[in-house]
Amino acid sequence: MRALSEWLPHDWRQRLYIIIFEADTREGRLFDIALLIAIVLSVLTVVVSSVPAVQATMPLPMAILEWFFTLLFTAEYIARLLSAHRPMRYALSFYGLIDLLAILPTYLAILVPELHGLIDVRLLRLMRAFRILKLTAYVNEAGVLSIALYNARRKILVFLGFISIIVVIFGTLMHIIEGPEHGFTSIPVGIYWAIVTLTTTGYGDVVPVTGLGKAITGFVMLLGYSVIAIPTGIMGAEIHSAMRRKTVTTRTCGQCQTEGHDPDARFCKHCGSKLGPYQTDSTPPPEPS
Amino acid sequence: MRALSEWLPHDWRQRLYIIIFEADTREGRLFDIALLIAIVLSVLTVVVSSVPAVQATMPLPMAILEWFFTLLFTAEYIARLLSAHRPMRYALSFYGLIDLLAILPTYLAILVPELHGLIDVRLLRLMRAFRILKLTAYVNEAGVLSIALYNARRKILVFLGFISIIVVIFGTLMHIIEGPEHGFTSIPVGIYWAIVTLTTTGYGDVVPVTGLGKAITGFVMLLGYSVIAIPTGIMGAEIHSAMRRKTVTTRTCGQCQTEGHDPDARFCKHCGSKLGPYQTDSTPPPEPS
Amino acid sequence: MRALSEWLPHDWRQRLYIIIFEADTREGRLFDIALLIAIVLSVLTVVVSSVPAVQATMPLPMAILEWFFTLLFTAEYIARLLSAHRPMRYALSFYGLIDLLAILPTYLAILVPELHGLIDVRLLRLMRAFRILKLTAYVNEAGVLSIALYNARRKILVFLGFISIIVVIFGTLMHIIEGPEHGFTSIPVGIYWAIVTLTTTGYGDVVPVTGLGKAITGFVMLLGYSVIAIPTGIMGAEIHSAMRRKTVTTRTCGQCQTEGHDPDARFCKHCGSKLGPYQTDSTPPPEPS
Amino acid sequence: MRALSEWLPHDWRQRLYIIIFEADTREGRLFDIALLIAIVLSVLTVVVSSVPAVQATMPLPMAILEWFFTLLFTAEYIARLLSAHRPMRYALSFYGLIDLLAILPTYLAILVPELHGLIDVRLLRLMRAFRILKLTAYVNEAGVLSIALYNARRKILVFLGFISIIVVIFGTLMHIIEGPEHGFTSIPVGIYWAIVTLTTTGYGDVVPVTGLGKAITGFVMLLGYSVIAIPTGIMGAEIHSAMRRKTVTTRTCGQCQTEGHDPDARFCKHCGSKLGPYQTDSTPPPEPS
Repeated sequence: MRALSEWLPHDWRQRLYIIIFEADTREGRLFDIALLIAIVLSVLTVVVSSVPAVQATMPLPMAILEWFFTLLFTAEYIARLLSAHRPMRYALSFYGLIDLLAILPTYLAILVPELHGLIDVRLLRLMRAFRILKLTAYVNEAGVLSIALYNARRKILVFLGFISIIVVIFGTLMHIIEGPEHGFTSIPVGIYWAIVTLTTTGYGDVVPVTGLGKAITGFVMLLGYSVIAIPTGIMGAEIHSAMRRKTVTTRTCGQCQTEGHDPDARFCKHCGSKLGPYQTDSTPPPEPS
Repeated sequence: MRALSEWLPHDWRQRLYIIIFEADTREGRLFDIALLIAIVLSVLTVVVSSVPAVQATMPLPMAILEWFFTLLFTAEYIARLLSAHRPMRYALSFYGLIDLLAILPTYLAILVPELHGLIDVRLLRLMRAFRILKLTAYVNEAGVLSIALYNARRKILVFLGFISIIVVIFGTLMHIIEGPEHGFTSIPVGIYWAIVTLTTTGYGDVVPVTGLGKAITGFVMLLGYSVIAIPTGIMGAEIHSAMRRKTVTTRTCGQCQTEGHDPDARFCKHCGSKLGPYQTDSTPPPEPS
Repeated sequence: MRALSEWLPHDWRQRLYIIIFEADTREGRLFDIALLIAIVLSVLTVVVSSVPAVQATMPLPMAILEWFFTLLFTAEYIARLLSAHRPMRYALSFYGLIDLLAILPTYLAILVPELHGLIDVRLLRLMRAFRILKLTAYVNEAGVLSIALYNARRKILVFLGFISIIVVIFGTLMHIIEGPEHGFTSIPVGIYWAIVTLTTTGYGDVVPVTGLGKAITGFVMLLGYSVIAIPTGIMGAEIHSAMRRKTVTTRTCGQCQTEGHDPDARFCKHCGSKLGPYQTDSTPPPEPS
Repeated sequence: MRALSEWLPHDWRQRLYIIIFEADTREGRLFDIALLIAIVLSVLTVVVSSVPAVQATMPLPMAILEWFFTLLFTAEYIARLLSAHRPMRYALSFYGLIDLLAILPTYLAILVPELHGLIDVRLLRLMRAFRILKLTAYVNEAGVLSIALYNARRKILVFLGFISIIVVIFGTLMHIIEGPEHGFTSIPVGIYWAIVTLTTTGYGDVVPVTGLGKAITGFVMLLGYSVIAIPTGIMGAEIHSAMRRKTVTTRTCGQCQTEGHDPDARFCKHCGSKLGPYQTDSTPPPEPS
C-alpha cells in the first residue's frame, strides 16, 4: 500500500495532503466546501432517481449523473490514499470505509445488477458535514450544543429510562384492555401505540375503541404533553449555563480575582480596579434593529 | 413619473407624505391602523369568497366588496406615488410591488377572467403588519424576539442541518425496509414520512407495516420528542439573555452616563467610579387578580 | 329585591355572608371546598348522562341526580341572594349569572323539554374553581404564573400575529396547489389544514397528495416544530424572572444595601455584616430524597 | 416465618443480606446490575412471546425461558426472605408484593391455565430500576429532576386543573356543535377528542366536519400549541434553580464548614468570615470533538 504513494513526487503529496486533510488553509477550506456541495448533489441524485416517474422517463441522465459522482468520488478516494501519511489507517478508518462504500455499488452493479440498490449507502457521506462543521465559524455554536448535550447526558438517560418503563407498562395494559380485535395484536404493537401516543405523534393507525382504553389514552397523552417539559427544561438549563460559561467566566479581575466580568467592562465591578483588555473571537451582539 | 407629483400643490404633497409614510405623528398612526384594518378585512373577503357555498349563493355582495377594496387600495397606491419623494423607488420597492400586485388582478380579470385567481396575492399585503408593528408599543417585544433569533441563528442552522441529515437517512432506510407496497414509493416519500414522524405531526397517511419499520418509527418519534428540547433550549437561553440585557439598561453611572450595569455591581465597569444604590423602575408585577 | 333579605334576622344574614362570600374563616373555607366538590360531581353527572348507553339503561337515577344538584344549587343561589350586601349586584355579576344559568334549564325543561339540552351550561360553574384557587395555598403558584403571563402578553400577541399570517398564507397556497379535488375545497379549509399541520397535530383528514404539496407540508411542519421554541422560550424566561422576584430580591442587607440574598443566608455576602431574620411564607426546598 | 431464616447459619445470612439489600459494596452493586439485566430480559421474553407468530412457531423455547426466569426469581425471592432482618415486613412491602406477583402466575397456570395471562404482571418489576438508580452515579441527576418536580408540583397541579376545565368545556361544546352524526356520540367522547386535539396528538379518529367545528378545533390546537409553554417554562425554571443549588454546594466555608456559597460571594453568608477564592471542581466542559 505504501508503494502507492511512491508514484507521486514528495512535494505533490505534501500539497495534496494540505488541501485534502487540512482545513486551516484557504485551499483546504475551498476543498471542504466543494466536497460538501458534491456530496449534497450526489445525495440529491440518489433521492430523485428513486422516484418511479423519474426512473421511467429519464433513466439515461440519471445513470450519467450517478457515474459522474462515482468517478469524482473515486478520484477523491485515490487522492486521499496517495496523500495520507498512513494510507492503510485512512482506508480502515470510519470515514475511509464510508468513502469506499459510497463508490463500490456502482462498480459492483456491472457484475451483479442486484447490488445496485446499495447506492443508497452514499447517503452516509452526508456525515462528513459534521467534520466540515468543525472547520468553520460554526464551531463555537456546535461547541455550546455539544457541551450542553454532554453535561445533560445522564439526566437524558434517566429520562429515557423512565419513558421506556412507562411505554412498556402502558403498551401491555392496552394489549390486555383492547385486545387483538381492536388492533392491539401483541405487546410490541401496544408499545408502538404507546410511543405514538406519548410523543403526541398520533398516527391514528392503532386507536382505542373501548371507553376504558380511551380514558387511558387521554391520560397517556396528557402525560406526554406534560413530561416533554423535562428534557426541554434540562436542555434549557444546560444550554444556558454552557452559553454563560462561554461568554463570561473567562474574564478575571487582576486585583480581587473575581470572575464573570462583562465583555464591555473596563473596570472591576467588585473592587473598582482597572481590567485588562478583553480578547475574544465571538461575534459582538447586534444592535436591536 | 415625476410629472405625476406635479399635479398636486407642494404643501398637499407634504401633508400626504407625513400621513402615509411617517408614523410618529398622530395622523400617521391613525392612517397605519386604518390601513391594517382595511387589509385584514380585504383578506377576510378573499378567504370567505373562496368557500363554494358563498360563491354559489351570493356572488354579487362578494364582487362589490372586492371592487370596494380594489378601489380603496388603488387610491392608496396613487396617493403613495403622488406623495413619495422618489415615486419610482417606491414603485420598485418590495412593498411597492406588493401594493401593485394586490390591485392588478381585479382589473386584469375584466379582460382575462382566468387571471382572477391571482386575487389571492392580496394576502401578501398582510406583511405590512410587520412594518406597522415597528411603530407601536410592541417594538420592544419584537426587538427582544428578533435579537434572540439573530443571536440564535447559527445554532438553529446547525440544528436544522442535523435534522435534515437525520430525515434523509431515515427516509431512505424506510424506503428500503417498507418498500413501495406499503406506501413508501420513493425516497422523497420516505423523507416526507420522516418529517411527519420526527416533528410528531403524525398524519397517518404513510405508516409502517412491518415490525422492523415500526421499531424504527418508535425510535424516530422518541428522537423527535427529545430533540425538540434543543431549539427550545436555545431560544429559551437567548430570550433570557436578550431580556436581561434589556432589563439592566436602566441603571446609569452618574459619572460617565453609561447604561446597562448589573444589579449587583458596586462600581461602574466603564469608568471605575462608585455607583449609586440600585433602584429598579421596571413595571411592578400585577397583583394576582 | 332588597325586601328578600328582610325575611332573615340580621345576625343570620351576617353569618351566612361570612360562610358564603368570605374565605379566610374556617367555615368559609369548608363551604368553598364543599361547593367545589358539589360542582365537580354535578358536572360529572352531566358528562356521564350524555352517554347513550347510560341514557338508555338508567334514565331515572340520572334524573334524580340532576334534580338533586338543581335543588342544591337553587338553595345556594337563594342563600347568596339573601346574604349578599347588594343582592342585585350579585345577581347581575358574571358569577351570579352563571349561578342562575346553571339551575334554570332543569326548571324550564318541565315546560319546554327541548330546552333540556341547556343543562350543559352547568359546566361553566367549573370556573368557580378559579375563584376558590385564590383562597388556598395555591395562590402563590397561580400568582407566579399570572405574573409571567401578564409580562409575556405582548410577546405572545406578536407571536400569535406572526402565526396567523403564516397560517393564512400557507392555507391559501395549498388551496391553489392541491385544489378541491384533493380535499382543499376552500381557503378556510386550507387554513384549517395549516393550523393542523403547523401545530404538529396532524389529524390526517386533509392531506397533501402532490409532490409540491408534500414538500410545502414538510416545510410547514419543520417551521411549527422549530417555532414552538419561541412561546416556550418567552414563558421560560418570564417564569424564571417571576419566580426569582418572588424568592430572592426582597431580602436586603441593612449595611451595604445589596439585594438578592439567599433565604438561608445569615450574613451579607458582599460586606460580611449580619442580616436580619428572613421572613417568608413559602415552603422550604426539600432535601433530595 | 422467622423460622425460615433459622435454616441458614448466621454469617451466611449476613453475607446474603449485604449482597441483596445493600448497594455500597462491590458485591451488592454487581448483584443489583445482574438483577436489572435479568428483569429486562424477562420482560423482553414476556413482550416477545405475546406476538402471535412467535406463539405459533416456537412455543417451547418461550416456555423454557419463562420457567427459567420464574425459577430464578423464585430463588431470589426465597433468598430475600431468608436474609431479610424482618422477612414479614419485606413480604408485605410494595416491592415484596411485586416480587411475589412476578412469580405466581407461572405456578398458578399449572392448575388454572386461564391465569397465565397474569404473567404480564412481571413488567412491574421494571420499577426496581428506580431503586437501583438511587445507588449509582445517576443519583445526582435523578435528585435534580426530583427536586425540580417536587418544587413544581403545585404549579403543575394548577396547570392540570386549568387543562381539565378547558377540556371538559370544549368537549361539551363540540358534542353540541358536531353531534352524534359526526362521531361526537357523547360528552366523554368529546372530552377524549379535546385531549387528543389540545395535546396536538391528532389521531384523526374523531374529527370536526362542520365549519364552526373546524374553527373551534383550530382555536383548541393553537391553545394547546401555546399553552405547552407553561409546563415547559415551569420545569425549565425549576431545573435551572435546582441545578444551580446543586452546582454551588462545592464551595465550603473554611470557618463553619457550610456548603453552597455563591460563586461571587466574598464572605460566608452563615458565619460572616471571609471566604477563600472560588475554585470550581466541576467536570470541565469537553472540547468540541
